[in-house]
Amino acid sequence: MVTRILIEHASQIATPRGRSARRGSEMRQIQEIADGAIYIEDGIIKEVGPTDQVTAAVGDLQGVEVVNAAGHSIVPGFVDSHTHYIFGGYRPEEFLARLEGAGYLEIMKMGGGIQSTVNATKACSEQELYRLGLQRLDEMLAQGVTTMEGKSGYGLDLDCELKQLRAMQQTDRDHPVEVVPTYLGGHAVPPEYRGDPDGYVDFMIKEVLPRVKELGLATFCDVFCEDSVFSIEQSRRLLRAAQEMGFGLKMHADEIVSLGGAELAAELGAVSADHLLMASDLGIAKLAGAGTVATLLPSTAFCLAHPYAPGRKMIDAGCAVALASDYNPGSCFTNSIPLILALAGIHMHLSIEEVLTGATLNGAAAVGRADRIGSLEPGKQADFLLLRYPDYRFLVYHSGVNIVEQVYKKGRLVYGGRP
Amino acid sequence: MVTRILIEHASQIATPRGRSARRGSEMRQIQEIADGAIYIEDGIIKEVGPTDQVTAAVGDLQGVEVVNAAGHSIVPGFVDSHTHYIFGGYRPEEFLARLEGAGYLEIMKMGGGIQSTVNATKACSEQELYRLGLQRLDEMLAQGVTTMEGKSGYGLDLDCELKQLRAMQQTDRDHPVEVVPTYLGGHAVPPEYRGDPDGYVDFMIKEVLPRVKELGLATFCDVFCEDSVFSIEQSRRLLRAAQEMGFGLKMHADEIVSLGGAELAAELGAVSADHLLMASDLGIAKLAGAGTVATLLPSTAFCLAHPYAPGRKMIDAGCAVALASDYNPGSCFTNSIPLILALAGIHMHLSIEEVLTGATLNGAAAVGRADRIGSLEPGKQADFLLLRYPDYRFLVYHSGVNIVEQVYKKGRLVYGGRP
Ligand SMILES: [Zn+2]
Ligand SMILES: [Zn+2]
Repeated sequence: MVTRILIEHASQIATPRGRSARRGSEMRQIQEIADGAIYIEDGIIKEVGPTDQVTAAVGDLQGVEVVNAAGHSIVPGFVDSHTHYIFGGYRPEEFLARLEGAGYLEIMKMGGGIQSTVNATKACSEQELYRLGLQRLDEMLAQGVTTMEGKSGYGLDLDCELKQLRAMQQTDRDHPVEVVPTYLGGHAVPPEYRGDPDGYVDFMIKEVLPRVKELGLATFCDVFCEDSVFSIEQSRRLLRAAQEMGFGLKMHADEIVSLGGAELAAELGAVSADHLLMASDLGIAKLAGAGTVATLLPSTAFCLAHPYAPGRKMIDAGCAVALASDYNPGSCFTNSIPLILALAGIHMHLSIEEVLTGATLNGAAAVGRADRIGSLEPGKQADFLLLRYPDYRFLVYHSGVNIVEQVYKKGRLVYGGRP
Repeated sequence: MVTRILIEHASQIATPRGRSARRGSEMRQIQEIADGAIYIEDGIIKEVGPTDQVTAAVGDLQGVEVVNAAGHSIVPGFVDSHTHYIFGGYRPEEFLARLEGAGYLEIMKMGGGIQSTVNATKACSEQELYRLGLQRLDEMLAQGVTTMEGKSGYGLDLDCELKQLRAMQQTDRDHPVEVVPTYLGGHAVPPEYRGDPDGYVDFMIKEVLPRVKELGLATFCDVFCEDSVFSIEQSRRLLRAAQEMGFGLKMHADEIVSLGGAELAAELGAVSADHLLMASDLGIAKLAGAGTVATLLPSTAFCLAHPYAPGRKMIDAGCAVALASDYNPGSCFTNSIPLILALAGIHMHLSIEEVLTGATLNGAAAVGRADRIGSLEPGKQADFLLLRYPDYRFLVYHSGVNIVEQVYKKGRLVYGGRP
């Protein structure tokens, strides 16, 4: 028995098109359909277009659930391609101390920094991480996120990294939001390897990555490539080994120092390079050339009061830009999707079309799933949002405010009531 | 029959203290009570303190409703002292065109600017404005606003200004959020007085203000004192006349040009001067001297990508700073309270204590009600919020995210379920 749904008379359907990242000027190409309809069979989009055309194509409506979306605009579900949502503990004192000017060493003395989250995450049971993970996925879903990447990286040893990844896998199974798991053992050098980052890279390559692969716990491998964390050479060694084992690659690149992370991501054919506040012009050109998605995390810059990544310049240079949250308890304890959209539209000078592409199709590309999510077109998964205003431009205009009224995942209403 | 409620075992109660605006360094004085309790009779706070002390003071709990607030922090309800929440129509195209660099004249050609909202508001029935107003108050309440100022100023003629004020009065009667009404006929010079702002000032003084007073429709009179709108001299004339009729005074001052609006607000003993991005050092000193609240509207600066008002400098100069939304469909179509708190804490360099004082007690002072709202202490109205984290520092740390779980107004649970 096929489940058939027709969403009709949406004031507007707005979507990018395509099955891979949209680069440069392509990011402005949004299809806008007035009085739009979507017809879905078993969670897959069959038809998208003006209501009269779609209903004509569907023909007999016997057995079709019909939803009138008048007054609403519809966009694809958001894809948040960079989060650290599985963690224990919070760090408000450290955050406020940094705002008042505390430096790195002072924060360490307060017991702050990533190690404090590692300790708290180690102290959490897998069940507790799972419970927190579900809560956080609820929060994302209510903001229209239908697919989300999640990283480990608060264990650093073997056991706690696997615990994080298992908790993540379990939330993926039990929650409507699809989770794409990333192994980020290379988030920091743990105390047991202090002064020996190469030894820790060896450990990850020999002891952890093969286990993660064998257990099927991660799709991607990521590394925090940064001055005083993992060098270009260490990052290359880790990522190459991961690539040989079959992991897709992601990188925390050029956030604080222009280290050449963008260049490395392009060299390795990484799916995405993330942060990029300090990416060089050469690095940007190489990302564009390699088709590596430039994933920008404006909320982190906002929370740290750093300048934003040069998103405008990147798009103009032909890059595919994605927008993601970086949700984490340290540098960026916000999972607000509306904030990201407002920052990109108002402060990074992306057009509304580019903002939508960055939060949907290019996010999907940044998790390697642009072939089946991120846009509304026949053959793709029916992941979409009904907004409470008739024009998707309210996503930036109603700045910082969540206007998602309903969320459909695989054609099923998973958040909000009927309109 | 007295209604008696005891909220006990809150992880933390955090509140400013006092019955008037807190100025300068006083803004940092937050009382923090661990394992806190509040005892309320008929909507008025009788006791606040550690749970053991409050329960001892209350004695017999017969007939007292007891609420366990473990895991939650409690703060006073937010007071949003500057909004334009009664309006018809939206202006997304204009907003986005401005982001793409459109100037004033281009926007006028698009049919944008304040006149477009005036036309849309005139086209709305009073009933429709009332309905929209209630919806918007719902949105504010869900973010913890328990008292809100609202301005007219989208009619400019007599009838539509009165219609806006009546709709506002009716929402105040029918909604838990208390509304403080302000007459802002001096928001712009209407077409019928183009080139004759003095004629329009005469009209407001002779025809409108007396009617508003007679009908009891506004507590305050406000004016948009700005280059090419109302001059210092016109603003002074309007506000003095209003003052003589018994209105409290507010001013849109020194937003775009340093015109001397802060100085004028101080000279007239206005309750608040608002915006103040370009206020002069002399103006700031005069506000501090006069005890006029400096109401800062960081979301407007955020939406327009303007530099923020110098809140840090103002507090250091002894001013009482309040934080408000400026919610309106043109320059600042956001009513996000979390965004304001994040902007103040992260980008304007206010401490968390100053942010809390600015959003509560000083907001109350900016609407002339610090004697009965804005802080949690005996004799004040029991308007308070249960937050979903145990420390009020999450108001800035969980940047841009609404962490209000429950809202109590006059001792009654008006938003959210029991913990
Ligand atoms: Zn990250
Ligand atoms: Zn205003």
